[in-house]
Amino acid sequence: MNTSIGKMIYEGKAKKVFQYSDDAEKVFLEFKDSLTAFNAQKKGSFDNKGPINRDIAVLIFEYLEKKGIQSHFLESIGERGMLVQQVTIIPFEVVVRNWLAGSTAKKLGIAEGKILKKPLVEFYLKNDDLADPFVSDDQMLMMELIKSEEIVQLKELALKINGHLVALFERMNLTLVDFKIEFGKNKKNEIILADEITPDCCRLWDKTTQEKYDKDRFRRDLGSVKESYIEVLNRMKKVEGGLS
Amino acid sequence: MNTSIGKMIYEGKAKKVFQYSDDAEKVFLEFKDSLTAFNAQKKGSFDNKGPINRDIAVLIFEYLEKKGIQSHFLESIGERGMLVQQVTIIPFEVVVRNWLAGSTAKKLGIAEGKILKKPLVEFYLKNDDLADPFVSDDQMLMMELIKSEEIVQLKELALKINGHLVALFERMNLTLVDFKIEFGKNKKNEIILADEITPDCCRLWDKTTQEKYDKDRFRRDLGSVKESYIEVLNRMKKVEGGLS
Repeated sequence: MNTSIGKMIYEGKAKKVFQYSDDAEKVFLEFKDSLTAFNAQKKGSFDNKGPINRDIAVLIFEYLEKKGIQSHFLESIGERGMLVQQVTIIPFEVVVRNWLAGSTAKKLGIAEGKILKKPLVEFYLKNDDLADPFVSDDQMLMMELIKSEEIVQLKELALKINGHLVALFERMNLTLVDFKIEFGKNKKNEIILADEITPDCCRLWDKTTQEKYDKDRFRRDLGSVKESYIEVLNRMKKVEGGLS
Repeated sequence: MNTSIGKMIYEGKAKKVFQYSDDAEKVFLEFKDSLTAFNAQKKGSFDNKGPINRDIAVLIFEYLEKKGIQSHFLESIGERGMLVQQVTIIPFEVVVRNWLAGSTAKKLGIAEGKILKKPLVEFYLKNDDLADPFVSDDQMLMMELIKSEEIVQLKELALKINGHLVALFERMNLTLVDFKIEFGKNKKNEIILADEITPDCCRLWDKTTQEKYDKDRFRRDLGSVKESYIEVLNRMKKVEGGLS
């Protein structure tokens, strides 16, 4: 155990957050083996899930860094740890959809698997007690938790990230159907990508077989959850090289 | 019965729509005595509700007309009838909120009765089977049921109407908490106010007693539903004169 890792600040559904004694502007994330769905009403886990997701998240942050997208990622520590910049999380989850699936498809009565003419950006208020309600730009402004120009910035960043991720997964023979990301403000007040990008928060469909390689395997009891996460990591290593 | 009134085209929750044989560009609306709530899961009615609501709707359309707001209203017929321009309804309900109440207060975990710094406009997809889901501007555009400039126009119109209605109800010692309106496109392709504005689709709170004078009395089993609708009509007649 790294002796710089201090007290736990917060335990989330998939990660624990610890203080980092060497530098107050950094925090340490530990990726857990647990899996949750439907606002944590369904719970599960698989052996080694934390390390697999940590590795996928690192490869994606490193890839996006090369594309000019700043994230909170600093370095890997141990097999399930990640040192990151401390940020104040912007309290809206940002979802980008290239194809319709999940809650929005259901809500609008549109069959899952409709390709969109252009990517759709959605915002959900981060609040577990309220089950992360979907909100419009006007509702976000009404709550006074964000400024109008920040909404514009989040949409632009989310669409840029989407473009880079679609290209990355394309090389892995996977369709990026949709994904959820979070942003935070660092000490310099810059808005940067935070949290993680892993199969926990993406929908990834094999381009040849249409098989799902993401948390829907757990959500919908499709089996081979662990194998699909490992496959995503292996394909990513092939196209993006080994971990640094 | 007016012999120009033809076949019923559609029966809604609160109104029937009939063809009008004298002019294909007009339709006849009959205001029913029924009341529904929670996407028609709760049903009720009271005697003379149709005529009361017809009269309120007429007074409001006439008031808005004087303020330069074009609606589908043409003339009153009988005690529960209204001749209107035929329009193609824009498939989004438009909600304007001055105070937070109802579904949005609940969704965001904010206590009912919070005054908003500025009015909030929301859109809901008109689809009973889907229980009229709340949608963002970007989702509306994704569905290709409306154009970007039309969304801007709807918001502007809704806020103008809100300003006029707040002033009208103010004179009636009522706070206009929120209301739902619908718009349609007429033969000239103009977007005009359609449907109705009545206590069925407004929240109206007495400025002195805070008592509710709207469909929440039915929705929440508060009693005196009919009396409250009659009171709204009586106060409106006092400030806006008799029916034409």
